[in-house]
Amino acid sequence: MTATQSELVLDAEAQALLFREARTANTFSDEPVTDEQIRAVHELVKWGPTSMNQQPLRIVLLRSQEARARLLPHLMEGNRAKTEQAPLVALLAADTEFHQNMPKVFPIKPDAKDIFADPGFRESNAKLNATLQIGYFFLGVRSAGLAVGPMTGFDAAGIDAEFFPEGDRKVLVAANIGKPGENAWFDRLPRLAYEEVVTTL
Amino acid sequence: MTATQSELVLDAEAQALLFREARTANTFSDEPVTDEQIRAVHELVKWGPTSMNQQPLRIVLLRSQEARARLLPHLMEGNRAKTEQAPLVALLAADTEFHQNMPKVFPIKPDAKDIFADPGFRESNAKLNATLQIGYFFLGVRSAGLAVGPMTGFDAAGIDAEFFPEGDRKVLVAANIGKPGENAWFDRLPRLAYEEVVTTL
Repeated sequence: MTATQSELVLDAEAQALLFREARTANTFSDEPVTDEQIRAVHELVKWGPTSMNQQPLRIVLLRSQEARARLLPHLMEGNRAKTEQAPLVALLAADTEFHQNMPKVFPIKPDAKDIFADPGFRESNAKLNATLQIGYFFLGVRSAGLAVGPMTGFDAAGIDAEFFPEGDRKVLVAANIGKPGENAWFDRLPRLAYEEVVTTL
Repeated sequence: MTATQSELVLDAEAQALLFREARTANTFSDEPVTDEQIRAVHELVKWGPTSMNQQPLRIVLLRSQEARARLLPHLMEGNRAKTEQAPLVALLAADTEFHQNMPKVFPIKPDAKDIFADPGFRESNAKLNATLQIGYFFLGVRSAGLAVGPMTGFDAAGIDAEFFPEGDRKVLVAANIGKPGENAWFDRLPRLAYEEVVTTL
């Protein structure tokens, strides 16, 4: 254990599972991903914090061949083969009408819904907080012993029109999910150093 | 252990530390948060995935009284007292010039920097990926046995003008960090059910 790791309370096995040994998968085995696994991930990551408990993330699981076929044309060429092959594909989207839930999820402030009356303010809140929740979700998928292959290389407007014609969802990320297959990893890419990321005032 | 939890590989103690028992802190003890702790958090969460390894998150730690005083006027009234009292405050911002690092962080595609020539596309990439990294960072802070108090109730333009006058950073979230103090928690707020979040096609 390095001096740095000894500052952490999280056990080394969990550190490896979630971060140090976890990798973005580009191929997957045939082993299915069950609804029970995704439910367990939800029951874990739902506790992650969002502004005023907004919880704007919505997840669409593409299980059927028909649903998968509707997505593929909107992906960048290089993302199509792996998405066709993955056991499960999830669309991760922001609910821009999340404020309808505020009386239920933030009962301590009865007028919380009204704070988000402005559509632009609502959308920026929805996107920020749903994206935080996507970060939690990825680590939740890894908590279930699965690999995730996140993608942002797609035509977002095309996906929104195809899957969310009512206009109340904005796709942020798509993610392939499953057990890694053969040659699933590229070489690990360099990370920025502490000094490049953190400044102290 | 519930049937749902048994689907997870992550051990129960880690689940509790990161999600189930972790809470947003609103008061903090006097115990300091060291640079070594934040470095350990960075060395863990730097492995989290971003699009094309962009890593646009930049963190400004406000340690001095002077730095803290520059932040307070830009926070919503209700966020000031706890921010004044917290052992450490972090500004979590997106680097909209992250593409300058692409030759270093994504060497497998020599022209990766050029993909982000358009400032609008670059900013939306920076914000999305920095926000994913903020999600990882929060869980990293919890991995160090610390509590986090995230805030989005602030004048972002005011903070950017004060701390990032060169215009190349956009603050997304501010976070108080420390050991929880007395009466640190509000009552736990309700979470959306699986069926409200997840749909299957």
